[in-house]
Amino acid sequence: MTALTFQEIIMRLDAFWAAQGCLVMQPYDTEVGAGTAAPSTFLRVLGPEPWSVAYPQSSRRPADGRYAENPNRFQHYFQYQVILKPGPADPPGLYLQSLAALGVSDRDHDIRFVEDNWESPSLGSWGLGWEVWLDGLEITQFTYFQQSGGFDLNPPAVEITYGLERIAMYLQDVQAMTQIRWNDRITYGDIYRQPEIEHCTYNFELADIQTLHILFDLYEGEARRTLDADMVGPGLDLVLKCSHVFNLLDARGAVGVTQRAAYLGRMRGLSRKAATAYVAQRERLGFPLLNSAPPAAVSTVAPLDASVSDTSLDPARRADLLVEVGVEELPADDVTTAISQLRERAPAVLADAGLAFDDILVQATPRRIVLSVANVGVRDTVRDETVKGPPATAAFDKEGKPTRAAEGFARTHGLSVDQLTVQESAGRSYVMACKRVESRPVLDLLGECIARLVHGLRFGRSMYWETPEVTFSRPIRWLLALWGSEHVPATVSGVSSGTITRMPRGAEPRDIAVASAAAYPGIMDDIGVVLSVDERRRRILDESRALAEAAGGRLDDDHDLLEEVVNLVEWPTPLLGSFDLAALAAPPEALVTVMKKHQRYFPLYSGDGTLLPKFVAVANGRRERHDLIVHGNEEVLRARFADALFFYRQDLQKPLADFVPALAQLTFLERLGSLQDKTARLEALAPAVADVLGLDADPALLIRAARLSKADLATGLVRELTELQGAMGRAYATAAGEDPAVASAIAEHYLPRFAGDALPATTTGTALSVTDRLDTLVAAFAAGLEPTGSSDPYGLRRSALGLLLILVEHGSTVSLTQLIDLAAALVPIPLTDERHAALTTFLVQRLRIWLVEQGRMKEVVEAVLAIQGDQPGLVAATAAKLETALSSADFQRLMAGVKRADRIAPRDGALPLDSAVLTDPADRALLDAYEAAAARVAALRPDDVDGLVAATLPLADPIDRFFTDVLVMADDPALRASRLGLLQRIRDLPRRSFEVAQVPLPRA
Amino acid sequence: MTALTFQEIIMRLDAFWAAQGCLVMQPYDTEVGAGTAAPSTFLRVLGPEPWSVAYPQSSRRPADGRYAENPNRFQHYFQYQVILKPGPADPPGLYLQSLAALGVSDRDHDIRFVEDNWESPSLGSWGLGWEVWLDGLEITQFTYFQQSGGFDLNPPAVEITYGLERIAMYLQDVQAMTQIRWNDRITYGDIYRQPEIEHCTYNFELADIQTLHILFDLYEGEARRTLDADMVGPGLDLVLKCSHVFNLLDARGAVGVTQRAAYLGRMRGLSRKAATAYVAQRERLGFPLLNSAPPAAVSTVAPLDASVSDTSLDPARRADLLVEVGVEELPADDVTTAISQLRERAPAVLADAGLAFDDILVQATPRRIVLSVANVGVRDTVRDETVKGPPATAAFDKEGKPTRAAEGFARTHGLSVDQLTVQESAGRSYVMACKRVESRPVLDLLGECIARLVHGLRFGRSMYWETPEVTFSRPIRWLLALWGSEHVPATVSGVSSGTITRMPRGAEPRDIAVASAAAYPGIMDDIGVVLSVDERRRRILDESRALAEAAGGRLDDDHDLLEEVVNLVEWPTPLLGSFDLAALAAPPEALVTVMKKHQRYFPLYSGDGTLLPKFVAVANGRRERHDLIVHGNEEVLRARFADALFFYRQDLQKPLADFVPALAQLTFLERLGSLQDKTARLEALAPAVADVLGLDADPALLIRAARLSKADLATGLVRELTELQGAMGRAYATAAGEDPAVASAIAEHYLPRFAGDALPATTTGTALSVTDRLDTLVAAFAAGLEPTGSSDPYGLRRSALGLLLILVEHGSTVSLTQLIDLAAALVPIPLTDERHAALTTFLVQRLRIWLVEQGRMKEVVEAVLAIQGDQPGLVAATAAKLETALSSADFQRLMAGVKRADRIAPRDGALPLDSAVLTDPADRALLDAYEAAAARVAALRPDDVDGLVAATLPLADPIDRFFTDVLVMADDPALRASRLGLLQRIRDLPRRSFEVAQVPLPRA
Repeated sequence: MTALTFQEIIMRLDAFWAAQGCLVMQPYDTEVGAGTAAPSTFLRVLGPEPWSVAYPQSSRRPADGRYAENPNRFQHYFQYQVILKPGPADPPGLYLQSLAALGVSDRDHDIRFVEDNWESPSLGSWGLGWEVWLDGLEITQFTYFQQSGGFDLNPPAVEITYGLERIAMYLQDVQAMTQIRWNDRITYGDIYRQPEIEHCTYNFELADIQTLHILFDLYEGEARRTLDADMVGPGLDLVLKCSHVFNLLDARGAVGVTQRAAYLGRMRGLSRKAATAYVAQRERLGFPLLNSAPPAAVSTVAPLDASVSDTSLDPARRADLLVEVGVEELPADDVTTAISQLRERAPAVLADAGLAFDDILVQATPRRIVLSVANVGVRDTVRDETVKGPPATAAFDKEGKPTRAAEGFARTHGLSVDQLTVQESAGRSYVMACKRVESRPVLDLLGECIARLVHGLRFGRSMYWETPEVTFSRPIRWLLALWGSEHVPATVSGVSSGTITRMPRGAEPRDIAVASAAAYPGIMDDIGVVLSVDERRRRILDESRALAEAAGGRLDDDHDLLEEVVNLVEWPTPLLGSFDLAALAAPPEALVTVMKKHQRYFPLYSGDGTLLPKFVAVANGRRERHDLIVHGNEEVLRARFADALFFYRQDLQKPLADFVPALAQLTFLERLGSLQDKTARLEALAPAVADVLGLDADPALLIRAARLSKADLATGLVRELTELQGAMGRAYATAAGEDPAVASAIAEHYLPRFAGDALPATTTGTALSVTDRLDTLVAAFAAGLEPTGSSDPYGLRRSALGLLLILVEHGSTVSLTQLIDLAAALVPIPLTDERHAALTTFLVQRLRIWLVEQGRMKEVVEAVLAIQGDQPGLVAATAAKLETALSSADFQRLMAGVKRADRIAPRDGALPLDSAVLTDPADRALLDAYEAAAARVAALRPDDVDGLVAATLPLADPIDRFFTDVLVMADDPALRASRLGLLQRIRDLPRRSFEVAQVPLPRA
Repeated sequence: MTALTFQEIIMRLDAFWAAQGCLVMQPYDTEVGAGTAAPSTFLRVLGPEPWSVAYPQSSRRPADGRYAENPNRFQHYFQYQVILKPGPADPPGLYLQSLAALGVSDRDHDIRFVEDNWESPSLGSWGLGWEVWLDGLEITQFTYFQQSGGFDLNPPAVEITYGLERIAMYLQDVQAMTQIRWNDRITYGDIYRQPEIEHCTYNFELADIQTLHILFDLYEGEARRTLDADMVGPGLDLVLKCSHVFNLLDARGAVGVTQRAAYLGRMRGLSRKAATAYVAQRERLGFPLLNSAPPAAVSTVAPLDASVSDTSLDPARRADLLVEVGVEELPADDVTTAISQLRERAPAVLADAGLAFDDILVQATPRRIVLSVANVGVRDTVRDETVKGPPATAAFDKEGKPTRAAEGFARTHGLSVDQLTVQESAGRSYVMACKRVESRPVLDLLGECIARLVHGLRFGRSMYWETPEVTFSRPIRWLLALWGSEHVPATVSGVSSGTITRMPRGAEPRDIAVASAAAYPGIMDDIGVVLSVDERRRRILDESRALAEAAGGRLDDDHDLLEEVVNLVEWPTPLLGSFDLAALAAPPEALVTVMKKHQRYFPLYSGDGTLLPKFVAVANGRRERHDLIVHGNEEVLRARFADALFFYRQDLQKPLADFVPALAQLTFLERLGSLQDKTARLEALAPAVADVLGLDADPALLIRAARLSKADLATGLVRELTELQGAMGRAYATAAGEDPAVASAIAEHYLPRFAGDALPATTTGTALSVTDRLDTLVAAFAAGLEPTGSSDPYGLRRSALGLLLILVEHGSTVSLTQLIDLAAALVPIPLTDERHAALTTFLVQRLRIWLVEQGRMKEVVEAVLAIQGDQPGLVAATAAKLETALSSADFQRLMAGVKRADRIAPRDGALPLDSAVLTDPADRALLDAYEAAAARVAALRPDDVDGLVAATLPLADPIDRFFTDVLVMADDPALRASRLGLLQRIRDLPRRSFEVAQVPLPRA
């Protein structure tokens, strides 16, 4: 038996990290969910002092318990936590060395760094980094810590968290945590199996909820008092106690989705307090550890001497440019982002620098961003450059003599005043300095371009790894820059360029010299890197399809997954794996979710679309033996499926309806009762909503669907895989023999989840979706929980948008006020007029933003909203039609007239319209035209802009004639009043659809 | 820098114990006071399954915090815990090897195993063992675990608990925990100093007492429910939470001495529950680890073949017997016990076995008990043996023929009926079987004697180390038994004899062969063992005195300490150490307590009795260099004194009176308020008590003393060293400028602490002592807290005895009833008549027991108590005098007459005494004598037995004459009545002092 025992793994890691200069410490002695929460991480990463530490940490996550029935999930387990602050030169490399010390080599295994950004909402801590996968098994969380307790880290810290049990199972090739050999006689199960069962029983069944609530409040109070007194250590302990009690409440199912946000906020506030006190304290103490760091490791990327070639100014001298930005594994999205941004910006940047070039090729893998430019050289050795100076009026006095301003400007540019010229610019005259400039050396220009291009890249989320000033998607670790065979000196983000590239991780030697830009592609091929995204995609598709076909199945078409996988590898190696048929007992949604979301596998389907017990995993790199890697991936899936099946079977023990009472334990929103209370409101509200929306839904089925709509939130599988909410509700409803309409509505009421998502297909689902959102919005506003600034903890903006999208899709004429009043009658907190108005404003604002995002003109949106704000279902169509109408010159003319009428006719007080006094032909013509139009308009729906246009266009001429021929403000008061009255009425004709005053017209 | 860093020490211990087959585990992740509380110890030591484990454990003992100001005491520190179950062959030897792995050798250092029996009252766990001293520094607790959670351990477990910080400080030669190098750059202080200060602040100042009380109750409730559901693991966690909360309450000073008992009881009950559930659970699981033990180590003591010498039956063949029982370090008292018991029993045991011998010498050190017997051999090769059979009446029928009983008896002893004889025994005739018996081989006899002698030894507290059946003071590890040069086969407590002795610990080779009994003393001298207690004592005294003299000081006379030290070493090496003069700022009582009680040092005094900054420590064994050992011992003392000084200085920050309010936090007795409440009662009660006792104490000073009497219990130093209560009260009172009488009374009110202790010297102290005890007793009885069976949790028996001893010493005439009534008026719970009576009975019983222990005749005690029970102050003197008087024949005669009078004269109803009818001369003589005696007796105090004797002796003759000459029961009723009336009055004369009826007289 040569595999390390569990205790030996820890001892090896202790020894390894001690040798790297880490403090080897003991686990923290109070219950924590992760090693991050211990003061050795949470506090010590703050402030400027160096701190490198390693320690195993018992971790307790009550909700993760499975009564020891899941092969690799216990609520109590061990992490091995390493903090390196500041980070060393090559943290992932150092980490791989530590795996080698455990006997795991990436020569034989597919070790991957897969984007995984970590966040602890209760600690106010987060970082960017990766899960490390060993043949598909997540064995480590690797994070560049960015914030702790709400504070930016400076310097940032590298956090490595080993999953010791996972590693041990892999090394010992055992199928369950219980089988891990702790030493040569005692297993992990011998020690922890029975306690695990008992702790699960306590956490899930026994712990007294009322007691836990009291404990949380007591500890919170103690924590606040203690931190107020600046006692950081005991204060943090008390915060950790809050956190553990919260975790117990959560395991007991006593924390609602929205209540959770409140709890997390309370804990985050305390954590922030602790962090603030700690930082202040260390400063007071003078940061005593500032000089405790070990000598810094020598950087392995030595900058080369910048030797400018003599020929680089020769315009005839062209050579290929090759720039490779070497990075730690980029998130897949960022690979795409980098490529598209570079493609767009590179031509301009190079051209601006006065460079000539041919084709530009941008390629990228997770580890390298490569810019290849053919035939780069200086465009001209010299060129003329014109610089704008002061206005001519300031440069010369009345006598035409140059002023001091002109003299200064000329001197600055090395010219005499005589040499200045005067040119027009934007309608004014300026003096200009025209001078001949010699081009700078091409290598200098290239160096500057490289820096501009790289620094100009923008990512969804950037991180820093040395100082907060230098950010990128992930740390930049090397820079290869060649112009032909010449080194291009450049520096990006603190990294100096060289002529070295790096092999894929784990290969030896790590570094390879690149003689020239031309040699680079061949080297990439040699070392097993496919630079082209298209080529990687092609290989994945071809090989995966071949594997699928051979296995009697086919892939589904999942564009997002494919694009992600393409950018997770440098050299794709699709491998076929299989899983036990028994797993198919679980609902396919769950299996597919696990395969795709968690493992990035491609599931296989049979011809009729049923799921097969097979998958394709795409490994990274080339290796001798694939069976080991397949075996590893299969084991991972087996364990994950076991987890899902465990819950699924447990959930099926009782019909879905029986989960409804458990909703009483899930708080909906603060002061707004439980999800069970909400369910009761939905049952009462849904039929009324269906009614006002004119939806043809069977009330009995709708009420049943409302009753069951949230029940799956209390099921184990959904608690575990929240993505499955709705889908599992449908599955469980079907299993329980509910009506298909009810089952569908449960799934559909979560639609749409975002703009562009599918809408509910059934009327029952539609009614339920609107009802749910309406209740949430009205309840939240009644309780004063509306979003503020960028904070929207309860997702109300998303709820509002979904509600509006359905109304728009259905072109519903329903009144918002009416809907809100229906819901307000049921929520437990009265909706005051002020809150009612706030909610209306909020909904209109969501609609406004969405319409503008849809490309509608802002003024058109405002014009329509001004009239139809209370009928959001009509607004989109109205605005679209109005915009179209406004493109016609006739309508523009009509509107110009109507707007002129509007400017003259008073807004307040309807004036008389006495046709007897309107005797002028222009009066009569307009009156007649108005009356004809008014008769037609009266029959139109407010959103019938086309009808409105058709009905009112005949007014265009009479209006123009009217304004030309008559004086509205006639001396005769009766006449004046009736003319204004007529204009009022004309002005008001379109105001059933939009506000005339806000309709935009082209400038004269 | 070659000394191990802190982290290296842990890694070395991990590696060492892993190599011994231990599981190396991680610390438990909830706050515990010691590694014992973790389930890996507390639970796993239960039941039959083997379990060997090692783990470091963060330990938190809130009350031990010193704000990081004490060089070696933090409230948070690390233990390294090892459990070996079953224990290996030589646990202390294995432990010493582990120290060697850390670089500590007992070749250079004085490593000692000093008795220290460990108990956790909250866990219901205890064991016997040692503190291990390294040059006087306690570095390890070494325990043979006997019970956990109230269960006997079978097999028992060896528990080794290393004090990691102590060891690190020693290895690194640093003077404070904060200076320990954790690794080569970071110190222990860098990590833990600031948190320590903060935790102390929280524990001592901030923690909310009310919150803690609630937490305790909540956790207790959860624990009970969880254990009721047999969920051992989470249940134990909750018990540990109770325990930590209790420790916090304690640190906040919120637990009174007696309240503590209640809390501990609650926790012990829960612990017991957890242990019970665990044992049942393991049994249900079938004790799955039963076969997990590593192969047992081969015992190093191989039994020799028993080869009986041919000449051992020759009575002329005599040889010296040498028996050495090798043990792990005995407690000092048990060395003495073993010697005295063996001295007493050996002659009889050897003689009973038919052995002849000359001188017997019994000697012992902590490691060996040695019996040397000169010239041992069989007394006779053959001898006659007589066995008693059935009574003669049963053995022979009326015809004198032998019955079947006689035949059977004869057959049993291999005789014919004819050979039986008849002999008298205790007044009856029995048949006897006389037979000639051949002696058994001398080696057999010796083997049996050795077993009988060793197994017959009884110790105050015995332990088991293999199976519960085999017990001894400490484990027996070898047995050397020689008769001349022949091996004596014997087995004691599972250990077979050999011819090997062992060197003192740490010496190599461990074992030495002993060729013959005669060679043994020389070997002992060679290896550095002084077997003779007297010789060790002489050496200690001579050398210590010489050292003291050279240092200009002298030792005090502390018999108990000397006797203990004599038996802590095999080879005493007194060494002179010194400490910093600054320490003398602390009160000498504190310094002396630390030196004597904690370190077993002899303090040095100057000629005028003031303490010198010097001490004598007695090391064990011979070594090259003593400076290392002296240095180590001095460092230990420095740290201990720093601890005492820390508190002392803190206490002096405010006058003693200012500690009185803090007494409100210390509960006195359940339902009886705080010590502050008690203080208020003492202030009110003391003057009244002084008054009824007739003590001439200034009331103002007495009240002041009462007020301050308990204040020192709230001071830091007394909380730390409770032995100093009273002494520190006096010191602090003096420092605060209180009247000397007040200061003395505070110290004296704790006197007497036991029978034979000094009594208060001042009247104020006397009054206060009586008052305090009286209040305690009355209050406790009012609350129903009196002792039951062997349980006296509040020390009421001791309180009662002290009270009585003072009354006796003062010969006080005070009435118990009166005293009790005075106190009862003040206690918060009414003292019912029944409780009053119970207290009186209790006090009388204490007095009775004490008097009998003083050697008074039981009947005399009863005679006096019957009359003077309510005046305990008089009883002792009365009884002593009565006993003396009863030794005179005259008084005996008088008493015989008086008792006769008592038997005749009715007890109820006083009869008339009409001198006119008493006309017989015997009547007249008796009447005259009575009247003369009565006149003298009336003036006597009840305890004036001498006066009573003198006054009543003249009655002796008249009484005798009266009974001879007159018929008491005369026919004349008047005469009869008067005669009986006279006898009544005579009988009643002594009944002011004792009960006539119970006076014992010699048998006729």
